[in-house]
Amino acid sequence: MRLIAVVNGPNLNLLGQREPEVYGRKTWAEVREELEREASEMGVELEFFQSNHEGAIVDYLQGLRGRAMGVIINPGALTHYGYSLRDALAALEIPVVEVHITNIYAREEWRAVSVVSPVVRGVVSGLGTEGYLLALAYLCRAWA
Amino acid sequence: MRLIAVVNGPNLNLLGQREPEVYGRKTWAEVREELEREASEMGVELEFFQSNHEGAIVDYLQGLRGRAMGVIINPGALTHYGYSLRDALAALEIPVVEVHITNIYAREEWRAVSVVSPVVRGVVSGLGTEGYLLALAYLCRAWA
Amino acid sequence: MRLIAVVNGPNLNLLGQREPEVYGRKTWAEVREELEREASEMGVELEFFQSNHEGAIVDYLQGLRGRAMGVIINPGALTHYGYSLRDALAALEIPVVEVHITNIYAREEWRAVSVVSPVVRGVVSGLGTEGYLLALAYLCRAWA
Amino acid sequence: MRLIAVVNGPNLNLLGQREPEVYGRKTWAEVREELEREASEMGVELEFFQSNHEGAIVDYLQGLRGRAMGVIINPGALTHYGYSLRDALAALEIPVVEVHITNIYAREEWRAVSVVSPVVRGVVSGLGTEGYLLALAYLCRAWA
Amino acid sequence: MRLIAVVNGPNLNLLGQREPEVYGRKTWAEVREELEREASEMGVELEFFQSNHEGAIVDYLQGLRGRAMGVIINPGALTHYGYSLRDALAALEIPVVEVHITNIYAREEWRAVSVVSPVVRGVVSGLGTEGYLLALAYLCRAWA
Amino acid sequence: MRLIAVVNGPNLNLLGQREPEVYGRKTWAEVREELEREASEMGVELEFFQSNHEGAIVDYLQGLRGRAMGVIINPGALTHYGYSLRDALAALEIPVVEVHITNIYAREEWRAVSVVSPVVRGVVSGLGTEGYLLALAYLCRAWA
Amino acid sequence: MRLIAVVNGPNLNLLGQREPEVYGRKTWAEVREELEREASEMGVELEFFQSNHEGAIVDYLQGLRGRAMGVIINPGALTHYGYSLRDALAALEIPVVEVHITNIYAREEWRAVSVVSPVVRGVVSGLGTEGYLLALAYLCRAWA
Amino acid sequence: MRLIAVVNGPNLNLLGQREPEVYGRKTWAEVREELEREASEMGVELEFFQSNHEGAIVDYLQGLRGRAMGVIINPGALTHYGYSLRDALAALEIPVVEVHITNIYAREEWRAVSVVSPVVRGVVSGLGTEGYLLALAYLCRAWA
Amino acid sequence: MRLIAVVNGPNLNLLGQREPEVYGRKTWAEVREELEREASEMGVELEFFQSNHEGAIVDYLQGLRGRAMGVIINPGALTHYGYSLRDALAALEIPVVEVHITNIYAREEWRAVSVVSPVVRGVVSGLGTEGYLLALAYLCRAWA
Amino acid sequence: MRLIAVVNGPNLNLLGQREPEVYGRKTWAEVREELEREASEMGVELEFFQSNHEGAIVDYLQGLRGRAMGVIINPGALTHYGYSLRDALAALEIPVVEVHITNIYAREEWRAVSVVSPVVRGVVSGLGTEGYLLALAYLCRAWA
Amino acid sequence: MRLIAVVNGPNLNLLGQREPEVYGRKTWAEVREELEREASEMGVELEFFQSNHEGAIVDYLQGLRGRAMGVIINPGALTHYGYSLRDALAALEIPVVEVHITNIYAREEWRAVSVVSPVVRGVVSGLGTEGYLLALAYLCRAWA
Amino acid sequence: MRLIAVVNGPNLNLLGQREPEVYGRKTWAEVREELEREASEMGVELEFFQSNHEGAIVDYLQGLRGRAMGVIINPGALTHYGYSLRDALAALEIPVVEVHITNIYAREEWRAVSVVSPVVRGVVSGLGTEGYLLALAYLCRAWA
Repeated sequence: MRLIAVVNGPNLNLLGQREPEVYGRKTWAEVREELEREASEMGVELEFFQSNHEGAIVDYLQGLRGRAMGVIINPGALTHYGYSLRDALAALEIPVVEVHITNIYAREEWRAVSVVSPVVRGVVSGLGTEGYLLALAYLCRAWA
Repeated sequence: MRLIAVVNGPNLNLLGQREPEVYGRKTWAEVREELEREASEMGVELEFFQSNHEGAIVDYLQGLRGRAMGVIINPGALTHYGYSLRDALAALEIPVVEVHITNIYAREEWRAVSVVSPVVRGVVSGLGTEGYLLALAYLCRAWA
Repeated sequence: MRLIAVVNGPNLNLLGQREPEVYGRKTWAEVREELEREASEMGVELEFFQSNHEGAIVDYLQGLRGRAMGVIINPGALTHYGYSLRDALAALEIPVVEVHITNIYAREEWRAVSVVSPVVRGVVSGLGTEGYLLALAYLCRAWA
Repeated sequence: MRLIAVVNGPNLNLLGQREPEVYGRKTWAEVREELEREASEMGVELEFFQSNHEGAIVDYLQGLRGRAMGVIINPGALTHYGYSLRDALAALEIPVVEVHITNIYAREEWRAVSVVSPVVRGVVSGLGTEGYLLALAYLCRAWA
Repeated sequence: MRLIAVVNGPNLNLLGQREPEVYGRKTWAEVREELEREASEMGVELEFFQSNHEGAIVDYLQGLRGRAMGVIINPGALTHYGYSLRDALAALEIPVVEVHITNIYAREEWRAVSVVSPVVRGVVSGLGTEGYLLALAYLCRAWA
Repeated sequence: MRLIAVVNGPNLNLLGQREPEVYGRKTWAEVREELEREASEMGVELEFFQSNHEGAIVDYLQGLRGRAMGVIINPGALTHYGYSLRDALAALEIPVVEVHITNIYAREEWRAVSVVSPVVRGVVSGLGTEGYLLALAYLCRAWA
Repeated sequence: MRLIAVVNGPNLNLLGQREPEVYGRKTWAEVREELEREASEMGVELEFFQSNHEGAIVDYLQGLRGRAMGVIINPGALTHYGYSLRDALAALEIPVVEVHITNIYAREEWRAVSVVSPVVRGVVSGLGTEGYLLALAYLCRAWA
Repeated sequence: MRLIAVVNGPNLNLLGQREPEVYGRKTWAEVREELEREASEMGVELEFFQSNHEGAIVDYLQGLRGRAMGVIINPGALTHYGYSLRDALAALEIPVVEVHITNIYAREEWRAVSVVSPVVRGVVSGLGTEGYLLALAYLCRAWA
Repeated sequence: MRLIAVVNGPNLNLLGQREPEVYGRKTWAEVREELEREASEMGVELEFFQSNHEGAIVDYLQGLRGRAMGVIINPGALTHYGYSLRDALAALEIPVVEVHITNIYAREEWRAVSVVSPVVRGVVSGLGTEGYLLALAYLCRAWA
Repeated sequence: MRLIAVVNGPNLNLLGQREPEVYGRKTWAEVREELEREASEMGVELEFFQSNHEGAIVDYLQGLRGRAMGVIINPGALTHYGYSLRDALAALEIPVVEVHITNIYAREEWRAVSVVSPVVRGVVSGLGTEGYLLALAYLCRAWA
Repeated sequence: MRLIAVVNGPNLNLLGQREPEVYGRKTWAEVREELEREASEMGVELEFFQSNHEGAIVDYLQGLRGRAMGVIINPGALTHYGYSLRDALAALEIPVVEVHITNIYAREEWRAVSVVSPVVRGVVSGLGTEGYLLALAYLCRAWA
Repeated sequence: MRLIAVVNGPNLNLLGQREPEVYGRKTWAEVREELEREASEMGVELEFFQSNHEGAIVDYLQGLRGRAMGVIINPGALTHYGYSLRDALAALEIPVVEVHITNIYAREEWRAVSVVSPVVRGVVSGLGTEGYLLALAYLCRAWA
């Protein structure tokens, strides 16, 4: 059981296409490749999941029980209202790292509050897609 | 038309596994058995539905029109933001009893507000899984 | 010590006279009779108390210590500011069920907050005077 | 049944002694005499009641049912939290005029909100003890 | 200088036409007649002013300086945002009574706050057009 | 009585001069011509009114009583505090459509709340000066 | 590419059945027919989509990229919390008109705020099902 | 007139029985003995009063006028809503010390606000039952 | 075009008469004389305008377009709600200095917020009528 | 290790000079003398520290580790924003008593909240400079 | 004693280097020279002080007692949380003018509130470094 | 110029001693060693700075100008009110990573808001002292 799940919320499949000046020009395929290279060095396996449906993500997370040793999640817009997602993460009882590509605490637009943060181990925010790699490094070392 | 629907929201399929010290050790299978025994004594039929998708619950509730005489619902985390669920319940025009296993009014965690409560007949909160049975008893007597 | 106290707060002695379209036409005498019939079947004894004085209710509750095994209370308007009542209930250390005839969480009028709920076992709200019977059933089963 | 009740809340028995620069130097005895002279001219009877107990005022108001045709009330500090008083006034179903000797809307001290105002016919505030006489005049004319 | 000004704010010239079930069927002409009869008995003179322009009311109030001994004002919608009106009233340094035909403290619609109240002598609210007469009585007695 | 009034609030006479990158380069004269062409096809008459004075707009609206069958209004800055304007619109009892050239709900600057919206039939916001034409079309069809 | 998508959110499939006194008696079939007649005159094609699942609407909107030239959307209850929907609309980069059948700004029930409005071109609210036709007219003219 | 009144609010007669891990195991009898020993050394007399009725405490405080030189009060739950108590204390015009056994400012439970504090001389909070002795010492020295 | 407009809002014509202990004893005539002396030294022309009507000030400011090179404005009570005034100032596109005779940020009375400040160049507050002279000095130097 | 530190925050070196009608006329020298007399009787040693620098107080408190058995602190204005001070106090793990000369809970000026209170043993507020002595007494007895 | 102190808070030593498009390109040396020229004409002496330490500024201000006749202060970021600075200014009892180079009331970034303003004589905001000169002019004239 | 500054705010010198169950048992010396090993591999130089004085940190940061290529900062309690620190960081114009050992967004204790976050590149929170290493890795890669 050396599996780590990498989960992306609504609209993150558009990464690299949508607002590249904000989210960067790297596509998810490129980020994924970097993550897999790192993971193989670390001797862990990765599983990727993206959906625009909160319910589908909850279904998926429930299925990780007893299979995965950690979760890296970027909840996208669910960050601000995904209480079901939050409950599903809390129920997993394995370490979760929440990742945001941009620095959400600097946004004026909607109040920079994550309803998910209170149930995760930690948060990496504003370090670009690099954030996924740092989260991976953390989870690996913690388990090493 | 002596059907009562028992609906559970996101993550409630984990009952008995997740945080047993909070939600009790009874599994949903056991609760369901008790409900069915009670229902058969009362001469009503029960139909059970659980989903992690708000949309699926809305679909299901729309289909109850003209089939069911009452609904017992534990909205799980949707309690706090499920406005579509709320509209679907309001559109049904049959009595609904909202059930919470724990006493949500005692939680500090998120403000103990249910967006669903304004459209239901009543609420049973904090009486454990016993709350489902009390809701059933209420609906039966009210229809007797 | 198989005594259960049924306590009503300010103005609830007017039940059946005041706003019958809201609170129903049943008088308290009728509700009481139903409760007593149920209690005798269950083999428990009931004691009834009503007062318009918060202090008098506190006095009464203190005197229940070591005499009663449960309390059913409808705090009336004290629901919203009766902090002394709340302390008295918390000090009793026996199960308390809070009952409201109407669904207080649906009221716009004053913010639908009960200062008492955080210290009780559970709440039954919006199920009419039936709520008292459900509370009684819960307390009996819990002690059975 | 030409009775009008004049009710004073907590600490108003100190009128004329406490903070005369705020509440004036007239004692309640003097105000009462003026009210009785006016009432006898108008052909109505007055009944006076003062208590420091919210419960006692609620008891008293319940007893007015079918006896009185109007109420003049200065709730004192209960203005800001007397929800039981409010329910008792609402249950009476006869016209009530709320009187405040000083202009409560000009106070910074505690937020100038009366929980009683939503259920009364009208309010007279800031016109000194004269406010009782104006309230009496209103009730008499309204009934003439 | 035994002049009392009676001032009405925006839309109050529609009295008796607009929402008679809320504001009553008496027209302003009728209310005015009653006020004049009362005033002539009291030996005071009345001057009437109505405008839909806040500025015009401010101009008018400034002109009362040294001419009037009191003001009765119903600010209409300016109640909720007329800070210039408020300054003009404060500058007058003669007693002002604020009148509202309906009980504004019972309205849910916009928060029942008058920005004018902190600078007036007192308020009469919810006693119908009778409120103008009571305000007049108060000002006359206070000056007698 | 086939008259529709088109009313513009403060500073809207500057249309086409002020911030053209926000409000477009069309002058009011051009918008007006388009409206009149449409109206003549629809067989209705238009009357135009603009003022920087809230009071003047209230005066004008009161004068529409029994003359006009509908109102198109862009309240300009009064959108955010014009309670007298709101009362005047509510008193008219004919359909009113509120128009905003830009999408006011997207502004961060001041809280995007219109105090006028609760009393109008509907709102068209953000569709440029085209919004006036759509409002006209609605009013004509509704009356056809 | 002369396609315009018409999207309806949760429970809008019940149109004409649910609360006809609020939403009118026209069924969606009738509204759809009117829209198609208008569209064929304008020389544009329409595509209709309704779902009770926020995720399904997001999926659908992502698929419009490069196919559609405009979107008309009535988000139903998602208006108040559909942040994923909002992101999907913002990512489309084609004009979107938000339609509400009733005047949502007049509702007290939940705070009349649309989380979607900040990313759309404009809003039509309160003009009944006519609002869909006006939105269509706007999109056609803007592209003509 | 060397009398100091020691007043305890609702439920404080349970001291030593209720939640000893929070309020300590000392009974009120023991605290009282300590206070009396201290007082006799200081040459002052003590009078003790406890009630669960706010009205009874107000009655009692009014009777202290001209008899007592100071008051030590632990308002219990009245701390958070006892505005009548507050008025009675303010009317006394002798020094009052408010005592809380626990540190109420550290509680999350209900907002740590005392409505009584603004009218007292000082507050001792969090120093256990020792707080009564410190208050006594303060009052004696202040009068020495 | 070396014209500077000096604009005073509602009730500022009373300067020197109203509350001299707050606003000083200098009349506006005296202040004006000082301003004119200074202006003539600086080689600029002044134009003075005062009104109690927000609309009239907006009309006046619109007429300054292309005539004036700066504005000194004391909005009086409009400071707190004059959104039309604010739009008119923003539309002018010449430097504006907002002046307050007293230090408005020290007032408790109404929240010390100016709705005008966000669109002006700067603010001088609390330096008495001297503030007008300092504003003049600033505008002259900035243009020199 | 019978040392108790007495720490004063910013501006408290001005005691006796600044606002004597609020803070009393006793200088700090006099208070200090009283404290030392008391301490010598109690057999404890005192160390005094005052600074206008939050950082310097934090440095000092860190140095108390293993040397002192208690701290008496009046944080002055740091009460309202001294989070570093708070952390330093929490890290000490010896009992701390917070002292305020005046009753800070009665101040309107800035919201009467102490950010330090949640980490101290207790608070003495409003008992003048006497408060230091009471705090000393408490610490000595607690250690006796 | 014709000394005026000119005090700058944290980071203001970077003037002319940091964000010149916001704060201008003038260095503090240049501003200082202008101030000294002006002061020597006015016959007053200036003393300059800058620090990044709130405590150091408090120390400095305490030392001005009996030496200076006025203070010009730009608190920098301390504007928003410097309560110790505020106390030190209040204790000085000589006139203080608060200066901000930019118009702080136009910033969205953090709520545009100065905690220092309530204790100063006046504020000059948004007039660039010119603001220091205007403040100096004010203090000189006021003392002339 | 391959220098990275590692800055710790108030009380962080106590790392490893204070609340080890929260902050871990690693001392700062150990963390520092790890950081230096990593840095030497990466070919960058580290400079360490800790202070309990906000002013001292501001002084230090100003001195980094033109010397350092990045900053890693754990502001300690200054996170919540260090606006001067924030300005100093913003003025540096080099990338800054904010590190918190614990997950500050999960704390109830004080509102989980960092005033520093809006001006930094990114935040790492809740990953223990590992966070410093991750921040270092990020800065090195970003510059590589």
